[in-house]
Amino acid sequence: MAACGGLSALGGDSRKIESVVSEAKKIFKLYPVGRVQKKGETAAILIFDKYTDALQGLDDFSHVFVLYWFDKNDTVHKRSILQVHPRGNKKNPLTGVFACRAPVRPNLIALSLCKIVSVKGGTVYIDKIDAFDGSPVLDLKPYIPGIDSPKKAVEMPDWLGRGG
Amino acid sequence: MAACGGLSALGGDSRKIESVVSEAKKIFKLYPVGRVQKKGETAAILIFDKYTDALQGLDDFSHVFVLYWFDKNDTVHKRSILQVHPRGNKKNPLTGVFACRAPVRPNLIALSLCKIVSVKGGTVYIDKIDAFDGSPVLDLKPYIPGIDSPKKAVEMPDWLGRGG
Repeated sequence: MAACGGLSALGGDSRKIESVVSEAKKIFKLYPVGRVQKKGETAAILIFDKYTDALQGLDDFSHVFVLYWFDKNDTVHKRSILQVHPRGNKKNPLTGVFACRAPVRPNLIALSLCKIVSVKGGTVYIDKIDAFDGSPVLDLKPYIPGIDSPKKAVEMPDWLGRGG
Repeated sequence: MAACGGLSALGGDSRKIESVVSEAKKIFKLYPVGRVQKKGETAAILIFDKYTDALQGLDDFSHVFVLYWFDKNDTVHKRSILQVHPRGNKKNPLTGVFACRAPVRPNLIALSLCKIVSVKGGTVYIDKIDAFDGSPVLDLKPYIPGIDSPKKAVEMPDWLGRGG
């Protein structure tokens, strides 16, 4: 068999290929831990009661990554789209979903860096978020410059314009 | 009923509380799209053949967020841990998993910013990644400074030290 694409890196070893095929069939389960809440100018992450202990200490951070689920796109069709014209603009070159931030992708995880305004009880008030009200939240991760900012110059394609 | 934690933000509206409870019971499915591959000094993301079209254009970027799954911790017990001493150091204060990057959390999504060395076929060579060989990869997202770098000064707790 002529191995191609990703599997070629395995050098055609049939046991390894078999193992990769079985890995690709695994499924992992995600449980929403909260929801995005938008009311007028206010944006917040509402964490469900069961998980509020996980917020301990978050108020010491200024910024947080919010990981949420593009739930409106959770269909077999939308999860099978692998290339798009970014930002819905046909002038932008056809681009893989792993090379843009399109809300259609095999796993519908969204990632937004947000400024924390305050943490009160189970609610994390943020400055803003580009998500629909009610989007299911999967995880919060504090922003840590030492691991979350590039150490070398950043490059990106022309379609993103200056700074993206 | 005395609403507390996250639900208090809903002002005790019973229909809303019911809706939140039903949201919290939803489950989303994740399908691995590749795996972390580490051999000696070489680190790479091997994308399964089915998904390699999604890499189109990634080589125009210098940095990528790799989202993978802490699969070794996918047990009911480890997914129920909500607070830890960060970095396994008891001198660090007990901290919510949403306020640190512990590999135990309700949803075992890991997020690592990596420098792209090259993209060849279905393999994305990166400079390094703090993941086990074989970790299931969920998504790749290009690093875009305009949305992924904080616009205001960053703050964080003392236990992280300078810059985290």
